[in-house]
Amino acid sequence: MFKTIGLIFKHHDHRLAETVRSLITLLRDRDVKILLDGENMLQVLDSDISDLRRVDRGVLGSSCDLIIVVGGDGTFMSAARSLNMSGARLLGINLGRLGFLADIYPNEINDRLGPILAGEYEEDQRLMLRALVLSDNHPDRRLQALNEIVLHKHNIARLIQFETRINGRLLNSQRSDGLIVSTPTGSTAYALSGGGPILAPDLEAMVVVPICPHTLSSRPIVIDANSEIEILIHDETGNRAEVTGDGQDPLTLADGDRIVISRMPRPLYLVHPRGHDHFDLLRAKLHWAREL
Amino acid sequence: MFKTIGLIFKHHDHRLAETVRSLITLLRDRDVKILLDGENMLQVLDSDISDLRRVDRGVLGSSCDLIIVVGGDGTFMSAARSLNMSGARLLGINLGRLGFLADIYPNEINDRLGPILAGEYEEDQRLMLRALVLSDNHPDRRLQALNEIVLHKHNIARLIQFETRINGRLLNSQRSDGLIVSTPTGSTAYALSGGGPILAPDLEAMVVVPICPHTLSSRPIVIDANSEIEILIHDETGNRAEVTGDGQDPLTLADGDRIVISRMPRPLYLVHPRGHDHFDLLRAKLHWAREL
Amino acid sequence: MFKTIGLIFKHHDHRLAETVRSLITLLRDRDVKILLDGENMLQVLDSDISDLRRVDRGVLGSSCDLIIVVGGDGTFMSAARSLNMSGARLLGINLGRLGFLADIYPNEINDRLGPILAGEYEEDQRLMLRALVLSDNHPDRRLQALNEIVLHKHNIARLIQFETRINGRLLNSQRSDGLIVSTPTGSTAYALSGGGPILAPDLEAMVVVPICPHTLSSRPIVIDANSEIEILIHDETGNRAEVTGDGQDPLTLADGDRIVISRMPRPLYLVHPRGHDHFDLLRAKLHWAREL
Amino acid sequence: MFKTIGLIFKHHDHRLAETVRSLITLLRDRDVKILLDGENMLQVLDSDISDLRRVDRGVLGSSCDLIIVVGGDGTFMSAARSLNMSGARLLGINLGRLGFLADIYPNEINDRLGPILAGEYEEDQRLMLRALVLSDNHPDRRLQALNEIVLHKHNIARLIQFETRINGRLLNSQRSDGLIVSTPTGSTAYALSGGGPILAPDLEAMVVVPICPHTLSSRPIVIDANSEIEILIHDETGNRAEVTGDGQDPLTLADGDRIVISRMPRPLYLVHPRGHDHFDLLRAKLHWAREL
Repeated sequence: MFKTIGLIFKHHDHRLAETVRSLITLLRDRDVKILLDGENMLQVLDSDISDLRRVDRGVLGSSCDLIIVVGGDGTFMSAARSLNMSGARLLGINLGRLGFLADIYPNEINDRLGPILAGEYEEDQRLMLRALVLSDNHPDRRLQALNEIVLHKHNIARLIQFETRINGRLLNSQRSDGLIVSTPTGSTAYALSGGGPILAPDLEAMVVVPICPHTLSSRPIVIDANSEIEILIHDETGNRAEVTGDGQDPLTLADGDRIVISRMPRPLYLVHPRGHDHFDLLRAKLHWAREL
Repeated sequence: MFKTIGLIFKHHDHRLAETVRSLITLLRDRDVKILLDGENMLQVLDSDISDLRRVDRGVLGSSCDLIIVVGGDGTFMSAARSLNMSGARLLGINLGRLGFLADIYPNEINDRLGPILAGEYEEDQRLMLRALVLSDNHPDRRLQALNEIVLHKHNIARLIQFETRINGRLLNSQRSDGLIVSTPTGSTAYALSGGGPILAPDLEAMVVVPICPHTLSSRPIVIDANSEIEILIHDETGNRAEVTGDGQDPLTLADGDRIVISRMPRPLYLVHPRGHDHFDLLRAKLHWAREL
Repeated sequence: MFKTIGLIFKHHDHRLAETVRSLITLLRDRDVKILLDGENMLQVLDSDISDLRRVDRGVLGSSCDLIIVVGGDGTFMSAARSLNMSGARLLGINLGRLGFLADIYPNEINDRLGPILAGEYEEDQRLMLRALVLSDNHPDRRLQALNEIVLHKHNIARLIQFETRINGRLLNSQRSDGLIVSTPTGSTAYALSGGGPILAPDLEAMVVVPICPHTLSSRPIVIDANSEIEILIHDETGNRAEVTGDGQDPLTLADGDRIVISRMPRPLYLVHPRGHDHFDLLRAKLHWAREL
Repeated sequence: MFKTIGLIFKHHDHRLAETVRSLITLLRDRDVKILLDGENMLQVLDSDISDLRRVDRGVLGSSCDLIIVVGGDGTFMSAARSLNMSGARLLGINLGRLGFLADIYPNEINDRLGPILAGEYEEDQRLMLRALVLSDNHPDRRLQALNEIVLHKHNIARLIQFETRINGRLLNSQRSDGLIVSTPTGSTAYALSGGGPILAPDLEAMVVVPICPHTLSSRPIVIDANSEIEILIHDETGNRAEVTGDGQDPLTLADGDRIVISRMPRPLYLVHPRGHDHFDLLRAKLHWAREL
């Protein structure tokens, strides 16, 4: 099925080396062509992978049928953001705690990866977001996110004020610590901490969750994935707000700046072993509805 | 545009008579054919409407291009449930407090209804739900809802226990006071009281909200409108649970009963004046994000 | 230390018999005088306890230095309500899952009960509540509670309406499914399901938690334990509300009925093993702040 | 009754000048000795107040029977922190929106202040907090608060990790955006935004509210006002946390720093007009339980 497979890994611990080694062995046994992400650095592996070609993310995305990411949810999200436009399929091998995105453990590689390579897999399409930051005294800036776009106050002691519009219509004006615009994937991450609902991973929707709003009468709102959200910053006092995608590289905002959030044109294609059950993960990771 | 118009009204107060009278006058002026719902009873109107044909809901639904409902959200929901299968368009004239469904006030009839009859209107499609109750010692029972299907304990002092499955997969097993499965329309009604998020009215989704779950780790979950939800009642102690649609006619449940909830095959077609803004209603009715 | 000890137990399973037997053996070894609650019925124990005197709850409360309750939190709460006025000390041996009130397991009897009998224990005082129900066409009715007084709608589909006053001052008027007035002890029970905060067990306070209020702008409120809460029922439509203490014996309410809730004059005296840690229980039972 | 009265005011707008002028006229008419806070600066008033003695806050606190604060809740809180140790009584005249602390409007000065000066008033005692920040490489630092002590992440994209102990016992270890320790007075401020309960103003308690905790199973906890709370910062990655009192002058924290929070030895003495009703304020300001 999969003829050319890309490998992305980041961490440097012993366990990773071992995992990557067995992964490469497995792939070689199956006569699969392997491409390495150019950013991968793991000296201990040098002898094992010296014959493998290293390419940059762009080539990786356009050349591979499947890209295997070894690491935690953070590494996976970063891969998702950089590869989204290529339409590549991603599969995660989880080195940390149970993850929502990378759901194969290192010791399951042989049992679970084999069938996937043979075509026995499930595919999930995950909504991704992009934000365009429009500023009077700044060139346009851009962010992407698999989990969420977050607007947040910079100053511990000052609320920020902003207006939110959905498809050009005023939703509300609020003073709060900030706002989360989350994908279904992100609904189990920061949006959950902010009190948002869980969204089924395949739902064509985003959820808008205020962070510590200074009112009793606020609620998260779930809107269609094709909506365009515009946030207008009111900041006459120079009380710096910031915006990030998946918690990366915060951009500083000024009075009058606008953030326009919409879906990425392409989803993330996520590969799971057969029998993958998202609700199982919810119950296991979130202690979902664990009774007293 | 609209050639045959049905009228549904229920209440008996003076204001209603006046409203219906001006409504009928307006319609007659426009040479529209008027059909009256057979259940309408308003003696004070008898002389005004004696020449109008009364038909039952089935005929009303199949014969009219537009059905105007005069009353509160309750009357409107009842009309929606009985007319859903006919694909009729509904327009609400609101006699009570500001409503989410009926958004024309009696004193706006001339200004706002005229343009609608001339084809100047917006149309909204609203998801509706149906529940099938499967029982060992009971014929199948059925419910419909525009707002929500609610499972609730009958006994003030006893929790009920049940399992919830989404498309055949276990979501969770819980002990609580009950469960709300709500449409986007219902997300501003009982689901909101239970702590659920707001859903944009056009979102193709339902939200599942537990009622007073006996756990810290529970959250509402939003799922695709095409999902099938199955609730399996555990009730070995004969501690009666009940289920209703839009708060109508509760059905009593027994141990082992199953409730299967899915979307109605047709949506409700809802007619609004041009410029209708759902977020305006949210802010006005819910004091949405009203600042302190 | 403790010279006369009362025993209350209720359940009929094998494990209880064994537990009670070892308990009695332990007490006999220490030359403690044992009194049995008159309601205890456990045939399998007859031969072991035929020489023990059975007394009613009143005598038990006034004659014993310590009363040991074998059972779950339900049995314990019932003992607390019936013995509160006697000022008796209660100790719980837990047959079920980990309990907040009964915190010795059957297999710990020898290790943990010995030191307690020798005077090595901690004592907790727990606030209890009472409710007086005033009705025009009904003699006064009374309830007691260790956990909570709950006002609840009877009818699944109808909200109830009522006004709440604290020390004679209007708190608010609300439409909801009901209201919970909880002690600190009850703050981990139904009040928690309703979204209330946790109260430290020794806090001199009650918490008032609305159940599914039909508003966005509602919050639990914590008030001083010496407050008097008055709830006035508005029910012109005969839509039955009910009130219970600890979920026992619901009383039916009518339009104009008033519920006056205040603290019991005496607290519950609760005996724990040395080193008892309430926060440990919170973390263990509630999965308190369990990280994702 | 009140012989020496201090005045504190801060803002510079026209309305303030007028208010202060009528206030001074009223006080002069009653032969009350007036002391001005040394920090008051209002040129427009110079001619009216040139004969009044200016003193620093310490002298103000120790010399006055009553101190009148003209301004918003911010000015009032600042006065409360600087005057708390003197045991002075404070009265607020509110220039902004309805405030919880300053509850006389400028146009009510004659009607409401007269009776107060004649001894017709109500007095409220409000709990205040102090925090001691213990650091290995820093001298001890201190904060005070009438509303709340807030621990918060500095970095938009990183959670902070810390352990919370109450009276030396572990409450929990959490990863979150931060933690609020609030007085009853602060329960309608930032603690409310964080999802905390309302505390009656006279309750002898504090509430601990996690900010966006990364878990489903978290709740605010209400503890006795005499408790000591210790927060231990875990920050091996140098991910700066900060702490403030009433949102003033954030202190930067490092790995291993400890924040010890306890009540101030003296409360704030707050003077209100007769008939002051805190629940009225709750309903008016919070739209408390406003029905849909």
